[in-house]
This record gives sequence, structure tokens and C-alpha cells, in this order.
Amino acid sequence: MRINALAYGLLASVALTSPVWANESTMKNTSDPNNWAMQQGDYTGQRYSKLDQINTKNVGTMKVAWTFSTGVLRGHEGSPIVIGNMMYLHTPFPNIVYALDLDKDAQIVWKYEPKQDPSVIPVMCCDTVNRGVQYADGKIFLYQADTSVVALDAKTGKEVWKTVNADPKKGETGTGAPLVVKDTVIVGVSGAEFGVRCFATGYDINTGKQKWRAYSMGPDADILVDPEKTLSLGKPVGKDSSLKTWNGDQWKLGGGSIWGYMSYDPDLNLFYYGTGNPSTWNPAQRAGPDGKQIDQKWSMTHFGRNPDTGMAAWAYQMTPFDEWDFDGINEPIIADIKVKGKERKVRVHFDRNGFAYTLDRATGELLVAEKYDPKVNWATHVVMDPKDPQYGRPQVVAKYSTFLNGQDVNTKGVCPAALGSKDQQPASYSPLTGLFYVPTNHVCMDYEPFKVSYTAGQPYVGATLSMFPPEGETHMGNFVAWDAGEGKIVWSEKEQFSVWSGVLSTAGGITCAGTLEGYFKCRDQKDGKELYKFKTPSGIIGNAFTYGHKGKQYIGIFSGVGGWAGIGLAAGLTNPTDGLGAVGGYAGLRNYTNLGGSLTVFTLP
Amino acid sequence: MRINALAYGLLASVALTSPVWANESTMKNTSDPNNWAMQQGDYTGQRYSKLDQINTKNVGTMKVAWTFSTGVLRGHEGSPIVIGNMMYLHTPFPNIVYALDLDKDAQIVWKYEPKQDPSVIPVMCCDTVNRGVQYADGKIFLYQADTSVVALDAKTGKEVWKTVNADPKKGETGTGAPLVVKDTVIVGVSGAEFGVRCFATGYDINTGKQKWRAYSMGPDADILVDPEKTLSLGKPVGKDSSLKTWNGDQWKLGGGSIWGYMSYDPDLNLFYYGTGNPSTWNPAQRAGPDGKQIDQKWSMTHFGRNPDTGMAAWAYQMTPFDEWDFDGINEPIIADIKVKGKERKVRVHFDRNGFAYTLDRATGELLVAEKYDPKVNWATHVVMDPKDPQYGRPQVVAKYSTFLNGQDVNTKGVCPAALGSKDQQPASYSPLTGLFYVPTNHVCMDYEPFKVSYTAGQPYVGATLSMFPPEGETHMGNFVAWDAGEGKIVWSEKEQFSVWSGVLSTAGGITCAGTLEGYFKCRDQKDGKELYKFKTPSGIIGNAFTYGHKGKQYIGIFSGVGGWAGIGLAAGLTNPTDGLGAVGGYAGLRNYTNLGGSLTVFTLP
Repeated sequence: MRINALAYGLLASVALTSPVWANESTMKNTSDPNNWAMQQGDYTGQRYSKLDQINTKNVGTMKVAWTFSTGVLRGHEGSPIVIGNMMYLHTPFPNIVYALDLDKDAQIVWKYEPKQDPSVIPVMCCDTVNRGVQYADGKIFLYQADTSVVALDAKTGKEVWKTVNADPKKGETGTGAPLVVKDTVIVGVSGAEFGVRCFATGYDINTGKQKWRAYSMGPDADILVDPEKTLSLGKPVGKDSSLKTWNGDQWKLGGGSIWGYMSYDPDLNLFYYGTGNPSTWNPAQRAGPDGKQIDQKWSMTHFGRNPDTGMAAWAYQMTPFDEWDFDGINEPIIADIKVKGKERKVRVHFDRNGFAYTLDRATGELLVAEKYDPKVNWATHVVMDPKDPQYGRPQVVAKYSTFLNGQDVNTKGVCPAALGSKDQQPASYSPLTGLFYVPTNHVCMDYEPFKVSYTAGQPYVGATLSMFPPEGETHMGNFVAWDAGEGKIVWSEKEQFSVWSGVLSTAGGITCAGTLEGYFKCRDQKDGKELYKFKTPSGIIGNAFTYGHKGKQYIGIFSGVGGWAGIGLAAGLTNPTDGLGAVGGYAGLRNYTNLGGSLTVFTLP
Repeated sequence: MRINALAYGLLASVALTSPVWANESTMKNTSDPNNWAMQQGDYTGQRYSKLDQINTKNVGTMKVAWTFSTGVLRGHEGSPIVIGNMMYLHTPFPNIVYALDLDKDAQIVWKYEPKQDPSVIPVMCCDTVNRGVQYADGKIFLYQADTSVVALDAKTGKEVWKTVNADPKKGETGTGAPLVVKDTVIVGVSGAEFGVRCFATGYDINTGKQKWRAYSMGPDADILVDPEKTLSLGKPVGKDSSLKTWNGDQWKLGGGSIWGYMSYDPDLNLFYYGTGNPSTWNPAQRAGPDGKQIDQKWSMTHFGRNPDTGMAAWAYQMTPFDEWDFDGINEPIIADIKVKGKERKVRVHFDRNGFAYTLDRATGELLVAEKYDPKVNWATHVVMDPKDPQYGRPQVVAKYSTFLNGQDVNTKGVCPAALGSKDQQPASYSPLTGLFYVPTNHVCMDYEPFKVSYTAGQPYVGATLSMFPPEGETHMGNFVAWDAGEGKIVWSEKEQFSVWSGVLSTAGGITCAGTLEGYFKCRDQKDGKELYKFKTPSGIIGNAFTYGHKGKQYIGIFSGVGGWAGIGLAAGLTNPTDGLGAVGGYAGLRNYTNLGGSLTVFTLP
């Protein structure tokens, strides 16, 4: 799926100033389906491959071709990338990078092992994960837990440059995959659970020099919005769009982490990402001057920004005044689809809050916002009428408002749980079916906010959680096929635990992902029928990927249980409320799997 | 291969006092080839299975059936055991034990995680390995690194009893697999690199109460020999057979570790094992009162002992006055074979010193002693003429005598290296071919002894080593088929690194083992032809095993690089002389594999 295939036209409102399209090496590499040249497959983030050797007819005969232990335990998110005969793969903390030569039976060509202060581990909110390295212009880009951004020579593994993005001593950490656009490598920062005011930053890929930084909240100059030109729901955001939605200085501890996968439209020259929850999780401490809800922009927001300047073309806030940690960081996926009968250039994302949002990707116009899990109960719907003063806003059910219920009150049975109807595990889009394949969490929670004081580098969470399946049910996940034009579930297959693995779809008509128990499964895109199943060494929170080598198609996946859902196993926690409630919710996992860290690669016999 | 099939007759010189044969549950379980009921397969230690569904014709189509991460990195020696629908498996330190239900897709039924003081790790000479749990009478027997012997309820994983065998503070550690005979569980102890006087101990399987203890050296009462009845080379050993072969009190720091796999002959009611090197590795410190070589019995000795009393029926010392760390612990394998045309009841072992010994297992009579690696150069031969005063003794080549060359002199080019022509990795015997399949090290060394002082719990090694392939060669291992009756190599296949994995042979005509780079290979027993090869996640030092479940045969192997050969990777050592010379010798391993810890199970499509 070449990005250029999407280039039907340009919107006059977005100027194209660069003489090159995106990053030329990335465009070239992603145009060859034998590569898996980006974490996202390509700039669209569709995670779709044109390879079709493995297909619905033969995937059932697939077998393990080879395996590779990363040498590190705990949660393995992301995937390797493949460019030609070289595979590059990363590990969770300490973020080792390996280069393997596929021509030489995956021999290790080089290994890069950063020295990182392990004191970063306790400030990583939800396991020591990393979402993978990227490649551009002969360099591998690694974003370390300690927020070091490193460019490595892809041939030798030697450091070309290294820069420090933020400060782990304040709770600022790095887990997201970088995005390289033209000569800019973009990284976010995490830390909303530590009162960090988070940001995205663009660095020059050749020198590591900072080009721009866009905070998630604060003064206009900090957040890189143009009061007149940056749009939200069709209107300019206006002056102090963020500042005026916070009480006093609370924005300085504002949160808005950025750690999900990003996408990019070279025609519009816009890249897309979401921001996380406002700090703290205790909404009472974030009430407005009048003691009422206040938006806390631009937390919980998806942006379209110019990668050269960082300037926002548009912003859309999914969950104003978050009361549930519905961290809006999930990956936006670019596609050209029919929305209610009309061809649109959209970006789709499946928000933690349980709504799937289809937005016009040039303007941020809200096209569709529907629940992709029918159990979502915290809001009835999102108001779609532009004339309604509530336009674009979810309509909160008072019973599930942890703010209205008050501090130190346990709000019961909110669906979804804080880890969302989907978390970081990326969905996939298949042009074959026009459907999105979504790995989901089917989990609810009790949520009790409490007062918390801010100390730099100390947790600034302010809520106690417990998690469980929706009432009357026992399964905690669904693998969902979604029509983003209509906002409807097309089919849904139950999984015992949350599907915490990134999805791959291919021209072979299959859609594949792992499960927390460790099964790797491929299904028929049309009806969800399970066509293949294999038990990998450990629970899967990595992303399925595919590549071609010497005429054979391969499909691969990291196993290595962890992440928020697997934090109990990963960190050896046993108290049910530990891991922000995940330990109790996913306690049953220990009967199925175990810590691990390896790559399993499949092919046809 | 049922042990009873070997029961052709009894030797009058060995009294059978027990009313039961061996351990009845073990006999019953090992008689069903669907089980892999002991680490050794059965009491013979042949590691041969009657299962033949996977055979020379179809093994090439074998695929991975399932995998399981143990949750622990570093060297994985031993294997799971399988009894009915249950699989029990262990890990390196901290010696976790899992029970998996094969009827339920290998779900974890219970997990036992001992609390062990990690201070035992630095006193484990050669990685944090463990050679596996055993099963008898509804109990799982675990021998921990810290020398705790634990009996677990096989159904629940609850401790039935726990006893402490020795003291890690003195350098005493546990790595070997227990042997259960009748109501006795037998364990050895390691520590020759810490000046420990080592021993084997029998405990009551129901209570954990000590029944007997047999030291490797010391007074007759300590070593459980009968001066009149215990034989060596056909003669009674006589009074003070050990004491008189040591200078002064050196025997109190005598070494003689016991950590290899043991075997047992229920007809003779004898169990078999070997003892390791005398302490220290600096032979000058062990010279006799006359300043000359002295035997240091019963280090470097294979024993046949009564499991009820510990009393030795016979002893044979392979390497008197060791000068090279040719630790004689390698596993004795019971077989009834033709020796030079005559049917004999033998036990065969492939000694670290590079000679393969075929002994009569009732009397210890020396039948065959030949080099199983033609590069072995430290001795010309073993004297086989009973009338020769040198009978049974290797004839040392002065050039390679680290004692004659002297302290602080680097003796160059000794073959094999200290880790032996074979180390702990157990060989296999196939009755189909009458051949032994031997995983070997093809490695030489430079060895420089130096003076060392004894401090309890501190290393008492006294030599610096470096290791390398034999001159003019680059490969460091061979997979060898051996005729133990004739003392001849039948075929030999090169491997790049030492073959540090235990071998399985089956009635399907195949013989399988792993490699340090991580390949699992099956060969034709007849000619060594490679019929199957698969790259597991990590380097293999575990033992191949097989079982049947619901009509299908499975073959499995642990991967997880480590052990002495892999200590550089396992412990993150980089100085070439670290790991007693292994780090330099096996430095190339890092280009192939990585730390890991998982089980890979294969079956036919």
C-alpha cells in the first residue's frame, strides 16, 4: 500500500513547503512490500501488506520458520522492522537493538546496548515497554526509556548522534516509536502519571538538533497552535485555547502524554497523534475556578500537525475533563473510505474512551464517533450536530462521573476501564474489505479518586482502581471488525483476555494478532473465522508484521507478556489493586503464561 | 526400553536385599514410552525412547507444536519430565518448578518458586544451571542451587518436606538431578572450585531424613567403602584407600564434586556416578610428601554403590592426580553390549579426559578405554594389561603435564580443555544400532597453575585457562557415534561450537540434540545425516526428550544459552580469560544467539 496511492489531491489550506515527499528512503522502503520498513508498516499506519503468498486458503498450514530470544524479559511491544535482508529489533528496557542478517540465517550483525540508569524503571507507569525502532536514511532511530533519542548507523550499530529529550528524574520517560518525516524525527514523552506537562519534539535526523517542541497544554507559543488558523470542530481555536481551560497553574502539571503510534499524510504534510490524560487522575483537583468541570485542553486530543514546524493544523478533544484516565493516545490510521456514502480522506482512531472516531484528516472535522464496544457506559453518545453547543462532546452519564460522585467515593462499574476499550495495541485497516481490525479490551472498573500532592518524580495518580469483565461476562477482550464509515461493528470474536497485540492485515485476506495467553492467531478478514493458532513462548503484546525474503512470505510476532494488562506478571506484583488495578483484573493470566521475550517467525511449509 | 529387559541374571557377588525393584512408580512410569518419566529417560540413562512415530522418513517434516517461556534467562540444562498428561519443568536459579497440563494445552497447574539467597550465584562455578526435577511416588524432587532438597506434591506443588543438604556459604551448591531409587532420593554436591570435600547423600523420600552420606575422599567410614569388599580394577581397595593417596590434610579440601546424571541397575541394586576434580586446580599444591604425583582418591572416580546403604561395590579412578580439571562426573550409561565379541553387562561413560570407558557394571572391571576425540593429547593411552603396574592408568605425556611444567608456567595446547571432550551434556545409547551418540567438545587449552590460599566460600581454583579449537581447525564440537565395545568412532559430524546438549535416540532411528547457536537437529543414527534443523530462540544446553500424548509423538528441548561454554553470554562476561577461559573460546557465540529460556516442542504436521 504505497502512500502515493492516497495522493488524490491537496487541500489548499495546507501549504506544501518541502521539495521532497516525506522521507524519501522511508517512502522507497515502504513501497516494497517485502520490507516492513516502519513500525506502522507505512505512513498510513494501516498495518496492511500487499503480500499474499500466505492467504486464507493456506494460512492454516503455516509453521514456525525461526525464533530469536531477545535476551530480555518483560513486556515486548512493537515489532522488528525489515529492510532488504536486514532485520532490526529492539527490546524493552534496557532497549537493546539487534541487527540480524536474514541472508545469513538471522545471524547477529551488531548489537547496541545503551547504558541506562535503572532508576527510570519505577517511573515507567505501565511496564518497561518500548514500541520499536525506526529506519530512515541509513540510520536506526531508537527512543530510550530514559528519553535519549539515538541515531545509529544501520550498517554498524555505531552511534551517529544522541540527544536527551527529557528528564526521567521528573517522571519523564520514553516508550513510543519515533516517526521520521523528511529530515525530522519526532518523539513524544510520557509522564502524565507524574504530573509532567508532556510534549512532542522534532529533531533533525542528521544532527539531533531540536527543530521544534509542541506541548500538550499551556500558552499558544508552547503548544504550537495558531489561534486563527488552527481548527477545532471547524472553527479556529482562538487565543489561549489551552490556558483558559485550566484552573490557575494546574496546566503546568498538565499531563497529556504522547506515546502512541503516529501517522503521516505526505500530501497534506500533516502528521497525526493523540495526547493523554490530564494530571492527576483525581478530577476534583482539576475542577475549574467555579468548582465545575473544565476542559483541560489539549489533553485527550488528536492533532494534525506540520512536521517541519510542529504547528497544528487542527485539534480535536475526545474527552474533555477526563475523569477515568481515558488517555487519548491511540494511533490514528489514515485511509480513504466512504463515510455515509461519500468518499472521504479520513484518519480513524479507536479511543481509550470506547468511541471510534473518524475525522477528516485535513481539517479534523468530526465525521463519525460511535462505540466500538457495546458495553461502553460512561457516556451515551457524542453530539454530532454542529449547531448543538455540545457539538463533538461525549454526553457523560452522571452515575459514572467520578467527579460528580466525588473524591474518596468508589464509582462502580464504569466501562471501559482506565486502560480503555483499546490501549496502545495498534489496529489495522484492510483495503480489501474496507474494514478496520481492532484488538480490544472488554473491561470495566471501579474508580476511587483521592487527593494527591505533587512532588517532582513521584507518582501523581490520585485514584485507586480495580478492573474486571463487564457484568455477567467472563471474557475480557474482543477482536473486532469495524466499519469506520458507518460506525458499526461488522463482526466481533471473543477472547479470554484483552487483545493487547497489534494487528496485521494482508492482501491474502487474513488479519493476525496475538493474545495475552500467548496464542498467535490469524483470522479471515471477511468473517473473523480463526484460520491459524499457535502458542508462542509467552503472552503477546507485540505487533504482528510481515516481510518477504527470497520469494517467501514470513509473518512474525514478539511474545513477552507485560504492558499494563500484564504488569502483574511482568513486575511480579500480587496485590490485586497494584498495577493501577490490572493485577487483580488479569490475575488469571498466570495460569497460561509466563515472562518471556522472543520473536517467532512463521512461514508456509 | 524397560530396565527389566536388561535383567538377564544376577552376579552372586552382589546381594539383593530389597523386596522391591527400584522405585516402583518410576519403573512403572518409565515402562510407558509415552512418558519421559526421568531426566535420564529411565534408570539406564540410555535416553532412548521406543516411540517411533517420528522417524528417519518423516522427521524432516517436523514442525513446532508449542512453546513455553520459563520466565528465567541464563543456561537451561536438563529437560522437562512427562508423566501421563502432566509435564513438570524446572528453571535455572531461582529453580522455579512448573506443572503443565498437556490435556489443557499446557496450562500452568501450579508453580513453585523457592526463595533462595542470591548470594549462592557467585559460588556456582559455571552458570546458574540446574539439571532437572525427578518424579516418584506422587512427588516431585527438586534439588536447589542452595542445596535444599525439596519434595513437592505433584498434584498441588505444595512442599511435602524440605531439607538442607549442604552450605552455600562454604561454596557448596546443588545443580545435579536427584536419583530416586526405592525409597531413597540421592543427591550430590558441587564445590571442588571452592575446596569443598564433596559427597553424595541418600534421603528418605517420604520424610527427607538422611539415610547415608558418602564422601568422595577421606576415611573409609566417610567414603563408605569396605576395604575387603569394595573392588577397584578387580582387587579390594584395602584400608585407607583414599587417605593414603593425599598429602596430609589436603583431602579435607579435596573436591570430588558430584553433579552429573546418575544411573541405576535394579538387578545389581547398584547406582552409578562419577566424582570430580581434586581441589585445587594447581597440582603443585596437591603433590605427595615426596613432591611427586599422588592419586588423590577417590576424586576423578566412577563408583557403583548400593542405594540403600551408600556402600561402594566398586570404584575406578580415571585420572589419578588430575592436572587439567578433567572432572570425572560424566553420566554412566547402562547397556548390555558385545565387548570385543563377548556379551557384557556394562556401564559406559565419556569422560572429560577424552577417554570413553566401558566398565563391567557389577565389578568395575575395565573393559575398554579409548579416545573418543582423536585430538586428545594429554595421555597416550590407558594401560589395559592387568599385569602391568600401570594397569588402568592413563599414560601422561610429559609435555602436557601442568605439574611437571610447574607452577606459574603456561602449559600450551593441552587437548581436551578443562571442560573436557564432553561435559555434563548426556550421551544416548540406541539398541537399534548398538551405538552411543555423544555430544562432544572439540577444544584445547593453555593452562597456567598458580598458588592459591583456601578461604571457606572463596574460589580455590588456582589456574588460569584459555580455550580454543585444536590447532589448524575452527570447529569446536563434534556429534559422535561411538562403538563402546570396540572403542571406536563410527561416524562424526562437525559442529561449529561444542555440542552442549543432551542427546535423545528413538526407535524411529533418529538421534537429536541442540547446538550452542540454538539449532535443534535430528540425525540418522546410522550415518549421522542431518534430517532436521530448526533455530530455537536461544542457544541449547538442554537435553532432548520425547513423549506421546493422545496418539501423537512429541520431541522437545529447552533453549537458553549458558553453562560453562556459554557463561560469557549468560553472565555478561567479556574478558577473554573470564569464565575459566570459556569467554574467549566461545566469544563467537554472541554473533548467533542470545540469553533465553524457553521450551520448544515439535511434532509431525
